[in-house]
Amino acid sequence: MSSDPVHAATMRNTLRLRRLGIDTYQEAVVYMHRRCHVCLAEGFSAQSRIQVTLGDRHLIATLNVVSNSMLREEEASLSESAWHALRAEEGACIELAHPEPLESLSALRAKVYGQPLAPAAWHAMIADVAAGHYSNLHLAALVTACAGDRLDLVETIALTRAMIDTGERLAWTTHPVVDKHCVGGLPGNRTTLLIVPIVAAAGLTIPKTSSRAITSPAGTADTMEVLAPVDLSFEHMRRVVEREGGCIVWGGNVRMSPADDLLIRVERPLDFDSEGQIVASVLSKKIAAGSTHILIDMPVGPTAKVRSAAVAKRLRERFNVAGAALGVRVDVHVSDGAQPVGRGIGPALEARDVLAVLQGDRTAPDDLRERALTLAAKVLELATAAEPGRSRARAEQILASGEAWRKFQAICDAQGGLRLPPQAPLTHVITAGRSGFCRAIDNRRIAQVAKLAGAPVAPAAGVDLHTRLGARVDTGTPLYTVHAQTPGELDYALGYAAKHADIVRVEER
Amino acid sequence: MSSDPVHAATMRNTLRLRRLGIDTYQEAVVYMHRRCHVCLAEGFSAQSRIQVTLGDRHLIATLNVVSNSMLREEEASLSESAWHALRAEEGACIELAHPEPLESLSALRAKVYGQPLAPAAWHAMIADVAAGHYSNLHLAALVTACAGDRLDLVETIALTRAMIDTGERLAWTTHPVVDKHCVGGLPGNRTTLLIVPIVAAAGLTIPKTSSRAITSPAGTADTMEVLAPVDLSFEHMRRVVEREGGCIVWGGNVRMSPADDLLIRVERPLDFDSEGQIVASVLSKKIAAGSTHILIDMPVGPTAKVRSAAVAKRLRERFNVAGAALGVRVDVHVSDGAQPVGRGIGPALEARDVLAVLQGDRTAPDDLRERALTLAAKVLELATAAEPGRSRARAEQILASGEAWRKFQAICDAQGGLRLPPQAPLTHVITAGRSGFCRAIDNRRIAQVAKLAGAPVAPAAGVDLHTRLGARVDTGTPLYTVHAQTPGELDYALGYAAKHADIVRVEER
Repeated sequence: MSSDPVHAATMRNTLRLRRLGIDTYQEAVVYMHRRCHVCLAEGFSAQSRIQVTLGDRHLIATLNVVSNSMLREEEASLSESAWHALRAEEGACIELAHPEPLESLSALRAKVYGQPLAPAAWHAMIADVAAGHYSNLHLAALVTACAGDRLDLVETIALTRAMIDTGERLAWTTHPVVDKHCVGGLPGNRTTLLIVPIVAAAGLTIPKTSSRAITSPAGTADTMEVLAPVDLSFEHMRRVVEREGGCIVWGGNVRMSPADDLLIRVERPLDFDSEGQIVASVLSKKIAAGSTHILIDMPVGPTAKVRSAAVAKRLRERFNVAGAALGVRVDVHVSDGAQPVGRGIGPALEARDVLAVLQGDRTAPDDLRERALTLAAKVLELATAAEPGRSRARAEQILASGEAWRKFQAICDAQGGLRLPPQAPLTHVITAGRSGFCRAIDNRRIAQVAKLAGAPVAPAAGVDLHTRLGARVDTGTPLYTVHAQTPGELDYALGYAAKHADIVRVEER
Repeated sequence: MSSDPVHAATMRNTLRLRRLGIDTYQEAVVYMHRRCHVCLAEGFSAQSRIQVTLGDRHLIATLNVVSNSMLREEEASLSESAWHALRAEEGACIELAHPEPLESLSALRAKVYGQPLAPAAWHAMIADVAAGHYSNLHLAALVTACAGDRLDLVETIALTRAMIDTGERLAWTTHPVVDKHCVGGLPGNRTTLLIVPIVAAAGLTIPKTSSRAITSPAGTADTMEVLAPVDLSFEHMRRVVEREGGCIVWGGNVRMSPADDLLIRVERPLDFDSEGQIVASVLSKKIAAGSTHILIDMPVGPTAKVRSAAVAKRLRERFNVAGAALGVRVDVHVSDGAQPVGRGIGPALEARDVLAVLQGDRTAPDDLRERALTLAAKVLELATAAEPGRSRARAEQILASGEAWRKFQAICDAQGGLRLPPQAPLTHVITAGRSGFCRAIDNRRIAQVAKLAGAPVAPAAGVDLHTRLGARVDTGTPLYTVHAQTPGELDYALGYAAKHADIVRVEER
């Protein structure tokens, strides 16, 4: 019926795609010309939310209006994440329409006004988040409405379930399936690369998916990638786990708890803590990955993510109760978060520390080995109900005997082959300006130096720490070495280090 | 000292501007190439917040990374609002740097966690908002943290003061200076164009600044612009007011309460009500404009902005107390918000209604005249402490005698010359599908029809309503006429109208 004005309007609302290659970091943006007929007919203006359809795929994007010749009037473009999500191609025709009103926004509004939400409301809201229907503004409102302590335990459980149910789930034929997660914030804390081979060598199943760095100098996936491929398909990952009992891969190829990824995207720049969301975020990812026993490493320290023992205690209770309600066993290990772990900060430098521990090198960092053994023993204890002393002895024996190192090599082989970490061509040593004792190390600023030096994009870049809290230093004693792959990055990291001379604080007494 | 690495790095962080013409609606965005040396050296990635400096001006923008040939590696671009704010020119060199950490974010975080803030904290936060230091995510968090009833009266007053203090203020030599504001949501409610000439003809000073439409089919400035220029400099506005006692101009040339404009930018898409913010928004703008006596028109109805008498009552109390604390007199007039006012919806159609009332046309819409007289009388009463009956008689007499019409013409002349509203070439009548009584008119949807028809960008476009609540209609009786300037826009509005046949609801009894 071509005389039906609705139908006619729908048919007319198409534009031809041209790739501009703009990366907005996961926010879906559609670019249209100010005078394009779709903008005029639909009354779209900058910041309008628009449903974009390509074939049988669609998403909702935010409009940015282009007023010059970068786009022609009959053309449109998409931000890179939207381009990939729609599997777009140069010249393809997209349809543009007003999106249906989102029913779940009334639940969001109720939460913003302080009301507790029923499980069905959480499900509706999280399903819309996972489908990409929420703008960044809506996501920020949701994160803010949950911040502080506005999610009770019942809501935390409902949120976790909703996050699991709106993503993919992995299933394993073995039991138990264990996992380990660190509530972040501690540079160099790369125990996963040690725990996985120890636990797998002990006969447990530990299919570990890890993230890449977003705001830190290295994520576990970045560090592992220095040693072996991590960008595995799910089928490849399954083969590795079936053969070796464990893996260390990047989790980005499996859409587990996709709503969590989207909320994290706005949580990081906002930097709000929400206890309910931390619990939901961790548990949803782990349960979707098929884990039955989950150990959580929670470093506590003045510049770590969790800054007080009281918060750690509340979080542990929430994790335990929510885990029980969701049918998994969760244990939280509170650890010292006062300073970085190991010596290296940055993918290759951390990988070097890991290899030293695995190979039983005399110079390997004690604290990294000690943490890894403690956590590996906790995992064994949690999953096998073994006595604490026996678990610890078993973990030590697996590491000391070289079993862990052999298992790690086997896992790397299965993932595509072990390789050696690169070394940075440029280094510069920062020395103490006075003598005394090392009294504080600023986790955030030392991480910033490593990032400015190029980590994690430049895998060999980063920082090598030469001192520990309490150590005696003299004027001129090396405090840390900056590693960089280019002179520009080295300069920039050194400039920042010079402005913040107290990153490693040395005091007389 | 060229060997100082900080200095060297700063000097290197420049890029040449190229205008891409992307309109992000006020959000400052900087576009840089993925491989540009500044991104690499500074570790910037998509969504990084970046301080952009051009000459002695600077702002903080969000980074979008470009990965193709649209920008070269040594080039950068800015969103249109940022381009204008920096008064940028093609080829100019900008400097890019990490912004200083925003101290006021700790106040924002405290508010998000539910703590009441001291006046100094509000000031610091609003100063950063006004300076454009907050990202859209931060603004969304702030709006969310204030939503519902999370601002007490003391905080409301502190927020209002902070908004006034961080913008420009107008000063007038006369006293009292009156103003009138409508807490929006009612299509066609264009009483300002009647109240200003009545009140000015009565000898009071009423320097009215109005806004353009953001999400509605017409703002007061859009409707006035059909009849006379509204884009006046502040000096021109002052001359108009000094000569005629009143004006009706667009407020965009004076940065009064700029933080409010930025918060509104995210409030609208979020669609949260916050009583504290409504009060702060209105009072900050009016007090910054130099008003001493402020009348607030508050339509209440099921599809108006204020939906219940209880909310209206609470808002009135807040307005009264906050006004008193801030040294101004505020009166709130609660009016019927059940249906649109007058007949026309859209700039030219509303202007036509206004002219009919001013000219004493027999066919002029009664409800528009009646509302204008009531409000004008309330303004006179508030500012001169006259008896209600006398104020009403005075307003009626000014309107009936033609004094108001002459004053309106004089104001238009002073603003640049009176002109006649345009007429749309295309119209289509929507008729009743059944007989009965008009039982409901959906304010939001009828406004949507007018917007889809092209209002306010197409000034002659909009809707002409032919019925009122309670009116008897038969099958085929005209309910409303859609006016459009192009066939595409007419089609689109009619398509929407066809999908929502109950915009004007007709029921048997």
